[in-house]
Amino acid sequence: MVPVASTSVSEPRASTDGHAVAARFDVVGIGNALVDVIAHATDAFLDAQGLVKGSMELIETERAVELYRALGSAVEMSGGSAANTLCGVASFGGRAAYIGKVGRDELGAVFGHDLHAVGVAFRPGSPEGDTPTGRCVIVVTPDAQRTMNTYLGVSSLLGPDDLDEATIAAGAVLYMEGYLYDRPAAKEAFRHAAGVAHANGRRVSLTLSDSFCVDRHRADFAALVRDEVDVLFGNATELTSLYEVDTLDLAIDRVRHECELATITTGPAGSLVVTPDGVVDVPAADVPRVVDTTGAGDLYAAGFLYGLTQGRPLDECARLGAIGAGEVISHVGPRSLVPLRTLVR
Amino acid sequence: MVPVASTSVSEPRASTDGHAVAARFDVVGIGNALVDVIAHATDAFLDAQGLVKGSMELIETERAVELYRALGSAVEMSGGSAANTLCGVASFGGRAAYIGKVGRDELGAVFGHDLHAVGVAFRPGSPEGDTPTGRCVIVVTPDAQRTMNTYLGVSSLLGPDDLDEATIAAGAVLYMEGYLYDRPAAKEAFRHAAGVAHANGRRVSLTLSDSFCVDRHRADFAALVRDEVDVLFGNATELTSLYEVDTLDLAIDRVRHECELATITTGPAGSLVVTPDGVVDVPAADVPRVVDTTGAGDLYAAGFLYGLTQGRPLDECARLGAIGAGEVISHVGPRSLVPLRTLVR
Repeated sequence: MVPVASTSVSEPRASTDGHAVAARFDVVGIGNALVDVIAHATDAFLDAQGLVKGSMELIETERAVELYRALGSAVEMSGGSAANTLCGVASFGGRAAYIGKVGRDELGAVFGHDLHAVGVAFRPGSPEGDTPTGRCVIVVTPDAQRTMNTYLGVSSLLGPDDLDEATIAAGAVLYMEGYLYDRPAAKEAFRHAAGVAHANGRRVSLTLSDSFCVDRHRADFAALVRDEVDVLFGNATELTSLYEVDTLDLAIDRVRHECELATITTGPAGSLVVTPDGVVDVPAADVPRVVDTTGAGDLYAAGFLYGLTQGRPLDECARLGAIGAGEVISHVGPRSLVPLRTLVR
Repeated sequence: MVPVASTSVSEPRASTDGHAVAARFDVVGIGNALVDVIAHATDAFLDAQGLVKGSMELIETERAVELYRALGSAVEMSGGSAANTLCGVASFGGRAAYIGKVGRDELGAVFGHDLHAVGVAFRPGSPEGDTPTGRCVIVVTPDAQRTMNTYLGVSSLLGPDDLDEATIAAGAVLYMEGYLYDRPAAKEAFRHAAGVAHANGRRVSLTLSDSFCVDRHRADFAALVRDEVDVLFGNATELTSLYEVDTLDLAIDRVRHECELATITTGPAGSLVVTPDGVVDVPAADVPRVVDTTGAGDLYAAGFLYGLTQGRPLDECARLGAIGAGEVISHVGPRSLVPLRTLVR
């Protein structure tokens, strides 16, 4: 691995007519719009409910009701992986917009409010009858691990018609969340959004989100990454699964030929930034006490994308990512409690 | 003031037929069922919104929408003064039930879940068409003060028909929340509930809740206290307002002739327990860092009522109250984060 600490990436490619107009947003995100329902519980609760610690499982209405009934006292707060990232971008001082579907219900109103409250422009797409806003039941164990059970509700019904093309065209970087990449309409929406972004001279980024998502849609993900993704976010498990290789080094060799840039989060070790020219290894932030790891990857992406859109060197982008991740794992909840810009020296 | 530290109060009066059956619940509460919407903000935000720090104001739909729009990112968690108290009673290890009205909506489901989750039996009364669950917008300033704006929704429509008489009859102590004492139907419900409790040989307690409530309904409150209340909860402002006297000592002289027992919370100084025989002064718990004072009075009442129903001496009841209050002000949110029984030495 060759250190390339102070490299920054090239300017975004020009639009099809050769002129990229000034971006109105730094980052425009697309993802599953979810409200988190967060409760503390013991390992025994996970066992009794048949939950695998650290995993994300999709659940249907009936199971959601059953699990919620068994769960202790909970707190509701807006979540959704890409939405957390966009709130982080805004918190660092970037201009952010978010596209995601919510229902005509109270949790949908809560979700919209909380984006608006931190200055993220919200493009909610169209509701679908009475299909409710999605929610993610997060069980936090005493070791700060989070186990997620997601009832997607209306969020997963996003399709090409829900995309606000003018917003995508106006964002320096498009950021798409792998969790949403499931139904055919959403896959089509990702391709379409990437096309709009590239046609307007923008960069396209994607987070692999979860090895479960990667396993389920490996061929489609691999094609999307190869064809459309300029900046890829993932961890070692997701990346080795994507390329079906045994070691991270083999995965790195693959991704550096396919993407302009990839970041690989390595938990407490920090992150790696991969370019065609080499790999930068950046340590994690110092966190006195890890309370809840929810949102770590999301806020890493926030810091990284903020740095990238400000033209910072890649090692500094990764350090901004580490600042975001470090703040969010020091408390309960998937979004920063302090303006992240105040943590940047 | 005469210290009567180890006095405990007499047994509850006998039922009308002379036989009090064993109580199935230690405490049965009635109050405004609300979900709290909690956000941090600066003093400048309070000024800009014309909010008086530390106050509780009732707001209508339009103002609720306007205030929520201006508010930063928020967290939703179940609240409601008496509901917080009953959750505290259960958390100490007591048997608790709660009567309060919620709407047929998501926040209503959240409210019910969070009672159930800590083992409080919930008797929700009947919904009223589509009238929504009430909510309390709580702004926490950096000095840990909370400023509350309450949209009551369906909660304030509670009337005598919403009372589960069997539950009231089965509770050793009935606990009623002054905030709810506003509309004629609710006032009637309080009288009716007190009648049911006394007819079954139970004690009746009341919290004055807020000097605003006391001012608004002084004559009715005073009559209720005189006629029906065995155990009164309040602070110095509420009590002097109730009796329209200038000093706390004068108010104490009044209340000791009207109630078997009264507690007066005195903030960081602790609390006073007043009986016809004297006054016990009990210090507050040692709290390293006060984060959010929401729920302090509610959890004081929880500890006190738990101790009372376990037959503990009054100074110990007040100390249990101090433990409850101390826990809840050390974090954001109106309910305890740890089982309160684990904090009792």
